[in-house]
Amino acid sequence: MPHHLRFGLGPVLCLLAGLLALIAALPVSGAEAPREVPARLLPVPDTVSEQLAKFIGAPPNPTAHDEPATVQEWRALINSYNAEADKGARALWAALRLTVTPVTIAGVKCYRIVPSDMPLENASRTFVHVHGGAYVFFGGDAATGEAAMIAHASRTAVISVDYRMPPDHPYPAALDDSLAVWREVIRGRDPAKSALFGSSAGGGLAMAVVLRLKELGGPLPGVLFLGTPWADLTKTGDTYFANAEVDNSLVSYEGILEAAAKLYAAGRNLKDPLLSPLYGDLTGFPPAILVSGTRDLLLSLTVRTHRLLRGSGVEAELQVFEGMSHAQYLTAYPAPEALEAIGEVAAFFERYLAK
Amino acid sequence: MPHHLRFGLGPVLCLLAGLLALIAALPVSGAEAPREVPARLLPVPDTVSEQLAKFIGAPPNPTAHDEPATVQEWRALINSYNAEADKGARALWAALRLTVTPVTIAGVKCYRIVPSDMPLENASRTFVHVHGGAYVFFGGDAATGEAAMIAHASRTAVISVDYRMPPDHPYPAALDDSLAVWREVIRGRDPAKSALFGSSAGGGLAMAVVLRLKELGGPLPGVLFLGTPWADLTKTGDTYFANAEVDNSLVSYEGILEAAAKLYAAGRNLKDPLLSPLYGDLTGFPPAILVSGTRDLLLSLTVRTHRLLRGSGVEAELQVFEGMSHAQYLTAYPAPEALEAIGEVAAFFERYLAK
Repeated sequence: MPHHLRFGLGPVLCLLAGLLALIAALPVSGAEAPREVPARLLPVPDTVSEQLAKFIGAPPNPTAHDEPATVQEWRALINSYNAEADKGARALWAALRLTVTPVTIAGVKCYRIVPSDMPLENASRTFVHVHGGAYVFFGGDAATGEAAMIAHASRTAVISVDYRMPPDHPYPAALDDSLAVWREVIRGRDPAKSALFGSSAGGGLAMAVVLRLKELGGPLPGVLFLGTPWADLTKTGDTYFANAEVDNSLVSYEGILEAAAKLYAAGRNLKDPLLSPLYGDLTGFPPAILVSGTRDLLLSLTVRTHRLLRGSGVEAELQVFEGMSHAQYLTAYPAPEALEAIGEVAAFFERYLAK
Repeated sequence: MPHHLRFGLGPVLCLLAGLLALIAALPVSGAEAPREVPARLLPVPDTVSEQLAKFIGAPPNPTAHDEPATVQEWRALINSYNAEADKGARALWAALRLTVTPVTIAGVKCYRIVPSDMPLENASRTFVHVHGGAYVFFGGDAATGEAAMIAHASRTAVISVDYRMPPDHPYPAALDDSLAVWREVIRGRDPAKSALFGSSAGGGLAMAVVLRLKELGGPLPGVLFLGTPWADLTKTGDTYFANAEVDNSLVSYEGILEAAAKLYAAGRNLKDPLLSPLYGDLTGFPPAILVSGTRDLLLSLTVRTHRLLRGSGVEAELQVFEGMSHAQYLTAYPAPEALEAIGEVAAFFERYLAK
């Protein structure tokens, strides 16, 4: 049931802000100043599993501050990221006993991922995954990691879209491809039994697909999973600052992230709602589950998306994990907290999908 | 409906952690090291209302690092906090047109707060509030601020417990008083129409009351609001470190917070579940809504409590607000985000309380 948050408070209340500040005895001065935060050492928290602690305690991604300047530099970086991620994804297929088949749908390269124990009643579901990777990384086999986890946890087949990416194919190729696949696979199927999901760039892309589907008259997915969505490609949001150098995965906006945003947008306004869906109209969105971590550089984007969805009357649920950096529920899989996060997504899908 | 998160993953998966780390191309070394975070300036975010920005941009609480060493120093600090908070609370009574009456229940000082427009059907509800203030501050009129906001938003009468506190009355006075009031007011009333709530120390105290009620055989409240609960009095949890000097309300564990924890515990083990309910058994807890902010020193306590509740099969919902420090949804009231937070609580109560 959507929450419509309305308040009948008169303007007299606005006059109270000053007085009420006193409740906390905070000296609210007229001058709003940036907060000076001293240097510090953040210990690895002892409030997480040993498996997750290994990931939290790992050094920051050493390439995060890179700013590839040429197509050749981009290709080298992409290849180095993908080579390792490809291996990880393929290991996951085997470990989870999934059948993974490359397929072409609406002219777009995809993977069909089928769990070995899919119940018959789940065969009428339509799950589509759009991978993360800042719109440049994790094409090919690497695309399927998150899809594999969800296919396994939800015992449902998943189509993972290996959409075209820069440097060859900037926006709107990723959106066009994902939209084309969605419209093809949902044809003749029950949208109330469908899900669209992805993390990071995949979360932003899933939101952009829904914005486009609203324009096109649907059909919208029955449910969304937006994992720490890259819903604003500009450096807007408090944790872009507060969690810089705290998050060991993305590390900072400056570097790869900013460069990738510009490479993908290819000169377009980064605040275009199809690039940064936080600037779009999210009314009418399907029920959505969002996942983030306390160290996530995109924690602010996640909570801003959550608040905007709820303020737009959408049923949206937030799960935040202790100490996790960006999308660490994927990279730390199968740490207990990662299984818990993926389990939350599967449970949310069960709750909102038509039977 | 409680979510039981269960996973059928075999031990083979545990061997995959190393491989899967590669998905993010993170160099996971064997050595878990503290993260070195450089000094930085955090700008006031432009992603919040002007009203909230004033509170986010205010300088850190200048007394946060105080460590009162004598009863006299404590009294002076308490009086200075309370004098201002008393005024704020009384202004709120008037602005919200609430009728506030001091009452004694089970021998404990309380306030009864009645909204002017309470519908007849809400008269059968029983709402009890336990205020925050690190178990030392905000006794007396100040106790009622949050209760007033909830009474207004939910159009329901609230009993706010002015429980005894240190330096005269350490643990278990606050718990004994809150428990005694609860058991008295719930007598002959429908627990399915009851709520127990509070923020900060009030959130921790509400949890301790429920732990005691479980031992006593109930009756448990129908619903809980745990605002950024001080559910662990030890310095345990990642944002005690990550949000130190980022949160301008609590600022740091060292100082008032640590001193207050010790003053309240009066020599007892700080990890006793009735002092730090995160170490308790939360199974069977009522549905709970939790609220925090991205700059909250107790964000980790909030998300740890949320996860522990959900892992214990309890329906628990998390709302996190952009840029907010500890309990700023109260201090910034009636900023739009504060109204939104209080509105979420009222909506959650509506959803889970018996009609």
